[in-house]
Amino acid sequence: KTFKFSLPPVSSLLRENKMKDAKKIIHSIKVGISLALISLLYLLDPLYEQVGENAIWAIMTVVVTFEFSAGATLGKGLNRGMGTILGGGLGCIAAVLAQNIGGVGNSIIIGASVFIFGTIGTYFRLFPSVKKRYDYGVMILILTFSLIVVSGVRTEDQKVWEIAVERLLTIVMGFVVCICVSLLIFPLWASDELHDSIVSRFQHIADSLQGCMEEYVKFVSQKENKKPGASFSVCKSFLDSKSKDEVLANFAKWEPWRGKFGFFYPWEKYLKIGDVLRELAAIILALGGCLQASETAMKVEPVSQSVQMEPCEAIGSGIVWSLRELGESMKQMSKCEADISEKLKTMRGEINLVISTSKIAAIDNMDALAVASFVFLLKKVVEKVE
Amino acid sequence: KTFKFSLPPVSSLLRENKMKDAKKIIHSIKVGISLALISLLYLLDPLYEQVGENAIWAIMTVVVTFEFSAGATLGKGLNRGMGTILGGGLGCIAAVLAQNIGGVGNSIIIGASVFIFGTIGTYFRLFPSVKKRYDYGVMILILTFSLIVVSGVRTEDQKVWEIAVERLLTIVMGFVVCICVSLLIFPLWASDELHDSIVSRFQHIADSLQGCMEEYVKFVSQKENKKPGASFSVCKSFLDSKSKDEVLANFAKWEPWRGKFGFFYPWEKYLKIGDVLRELAAIILALGGCLQASETAMKVEPVSQSVQMEPCEAIGSGIVWSLRELGESMKQMSKCEADISEKLKTMRGEINLVISTSKIAAIDNMDALAVASFVFLLKKVVEKVE
Repeated sequence: KTFKFSLPPVSSLLRENKMKDAKKIIHSIKVGISLALISLLYLLDPLYEQVGENAIWAIMTVVVTFEFSAGATLGKGLNRGMGTILGGGLGCIAAVLAQNIGGVGNSIIIGASVFIFGTIGTYFRLFPSVKKRYDYGVMILILTFSLIVVSGVRTEDQKVWEIAVERLLTIVMGFVVCICVSLLIFPLWASDELHDSIVSRFQHIADSLQGCMEEYVKFVSQKENKKPGASFSVCKSFLDSKSKDEVLANFAKWEPWRGKFGFFYPWEKYLKIGDVLRELAAIILALGGCLQASETAMKVEPVSQSVQMEPCEAIGSGIVWSLRELGESMKQMSKCEADISEKLKTMRGEINLVISTSKIAAIDNMDALAVASFVFLLKKVVEKVE
Repeated sequence: KTFKFSLPPVSSLLRENKMKDAKKIIHSIKVGISLALISLLYLLDPLYEQVGENAIWAIMTVVVTFEFSAGATLGKGLNRGMGTILGGGLGCIAAVLAQNIGGVGNSIIIGASVFIFGTIGTYFRLFPSVKKRYDYGVMILILTFSLIVVSGVRTEDQKVWEIAVERLLTIVMGFVVCICVSLLIFPLWASDELHDSIVSRFQHIADSLQGCMEEYVKFVSQKENKKPGASFSVCKSFLDSKSKDEVLANFAKWEPWRGKFGFFYPWEKYLKIGDVLRELAAIILALGGCLQASETAMKVEPVSQSVQMEPCEAIGSGIVWSLRELGESMKQMSKCEADISEKLKTMRGEINLVISTSKIAAIDNMDALAVASFVFLLKKVVEKVE
C-alpha cells in the first residue's frame, strides 16, 4: 500500500526528464518498492511469526542483489543462491565433523578449516575466468561457510541444519521479490543497452569521420587555420569503452530469452564489432592528428595537394554513408543490402587509382585505404551477426 | 595458533612462482589469517561472552571488505564504517519517531520511510561521482537504515540503540583485523601497482615503435613481404587500460602516506600520462596499419621511397630512445635530463627539413611528426610530475 502514492509523479517525471534520467528514477523507485515489500515480513504479524529474526537476511539480499539491469540482478541473485547452498552444505559437513571430535580439537579443527577454506576460496576468486562471472558467488560461499562452521560451536547438532535452511529460505524470498519487481515493473535490459550503445557508436563514428573530411576540405580549399578537434572527443571516449562493453555483455548473458536469437544470442559478435569500431576510432583519431600536423606541409605545396581532392572527398563520403547504412541495418536487425559490399569494392579500386596516379596526397589516401579495409572487415562481422 | 603451520610452504612458494602469482597467494593467505583471527570471537569463551551473536557481523565485515590492495581495503572499510554510523543514526531517529506515534500509523510510517530512503539512496548511488568512490558506503547506509528501522518495530526503545552500537562495535573489530593484517603482513599497495604499470607501458610502447621502424626498414630495403603485427597486440591492450588505471588511482587515493610526495600524491598526473600514452599507442597502431596497407604503394615506386630512409630511421630511433629515457626517469622518480627536450626540438627541425625537401615519404613523416609532438606533450607532463 505504501508505494502507490508516488506512481503519479513518476509518470510525469518520465515525460519531463530525458530517457536516461528516467531510467535511473525508475530503477530507484523499483528498489524502494522491493524494500517496502520485503519489510512487510517484519511489519505483518503472521509473516513475522513464520520468519522471525531471519528476515534481516531477506532485506540484505534485496539491498545487495538489486542491480540496474535485469541481467545483473539475476546473475547476482543466482550467484548468491548457489554460494549460500554450497557454502551452507560444506559448512554443515565441517561443523558435524568437528562436533564428533569435541573438546579442544573441535576449536582447532574449526579454526583450521576456516583458514584453509578462506585461503583457497580467495585464491579462486582471483582467477580471471572466475572473477568475471562468479566473483560474488565465491565470496558468499566463503561467508556462508565461515558463519555456519563457526556458529556450529555454540549450537547443537540439529540446529545448525535448521539455521542453514531458514536462512536459505529467507534469501530465496528476497531474491524472488527482487526478480519479480525487476522483471515485471518497467524492466531495464542490459542486452538492449549493449545493442543501443553499439548502434549509436556507428552513427558517432560516421559523424566524426564526416567532420574530419569537411575540415580537410575547408582547410585545403579556403586556407582556414581553424584546428579540428571537437569531433574527436567522441572517438576518444570510444577507445575506453571495452571494459564497459564486457560488463554489459556479461550481464546480458544472464538474460538468455531476450531478442529474436533465442537462447543463442551472439554476445561475442557484439564484442567483436565493438573491437573493430574501437580500432576504427583509433584510425580516425590518427587521421585527425595528421590533419592537425599537416599544416606546415600544406603551406609548402598547397596547389598540387588540391588536385587530388575530389576522389578523396567521394571516397570519404562513401565510407560515411556505408557506416550509417550498417548502423541502420543493425538497429533493425535485418540483413544489410548487398550493395554496400559492392560499393566498398569499387571504392577500393578508386583509391588504388588515386595512389597510382599520384603520390602527393599519400597521407590521406593511406588512411582512407585503411579505413576502407576496416569497413570491409566490419561488413563481414555484421553479416555474421545477421 | 592455527595459521602458523602454513608459513614455511608460503616462503617456498614465493621462490617458485612468479611475482604476480606470489602476490595472489599472499593475498589469499592474508584473508585466511584474518578469518581465523576473527573466528576466535566465537571460539574463545571469554570473547564470546562479550560479543555474543553479533560476531557474525565481524566475520561478514572481514569477508566483504578484504580486497587485494591495501588502499581498496581501507576505502571499503571506511565506506562501510561511515555507512553504518550514518544509516544507524538515521535509522534510530526514524524508529523512535515511529514508536512515538504507535498503532497502525507506526507500520505505515516505517514502510514509507524505508521506501523513500531506499529510493533516494539508490538514486544517489547512480551519480557518477558518488558511484566512483562511495557506492559501497551508500549501499551499506541503505542496508543499515532499513535493518534498524524495521527491527525497531519488534524491540523496545532502549534496545534499538543497543543493537546499533553493538553491531557498529563488531564491524569496527572486523575492520581493525582487516587493516592490521592488510598493512602489517606483506602489504600490497595499489599506488605501487599503478606506478609500475605506467612505467612498464613506456617501455612497451618504445619496444613496439622500434619493432615498427625495424619492420619498415626491412620492408623497404629487402622487399620482404612479412606482415608486421605481433608487436601491436601490446599497444591494443593499452587502449583498453583506462578504466583499470582509474580503479587503481581510486584505490591509491586511500593510501595517502605512500611515496615521497606525502599527502599530495599527484594521481591525476598519472592518469594524464596514461591518457597521453594511450593516444600514442593509437598513433603507433595507425602507423602499423599504414605499413600494412602501403604494400601496394611501395611496389609502384620503391626507389624514390628508399631515398628518404636514413633521416626517418634516425628520427624513429631518437623517439624510441627518449621514450625509454622518460620511463627510466619516472621509475627512479628523478628529474629527467634536460637534453631530451633539446633532442626532440632538433628532431622536429629534421622532420620539417625532410618534408620540405620531398613529399614522397609523406605518410611516415606525418605520423612521425605526430609522434614527436606527442612525445613533446609527454615531456611536459613528466616535468609536472617530477
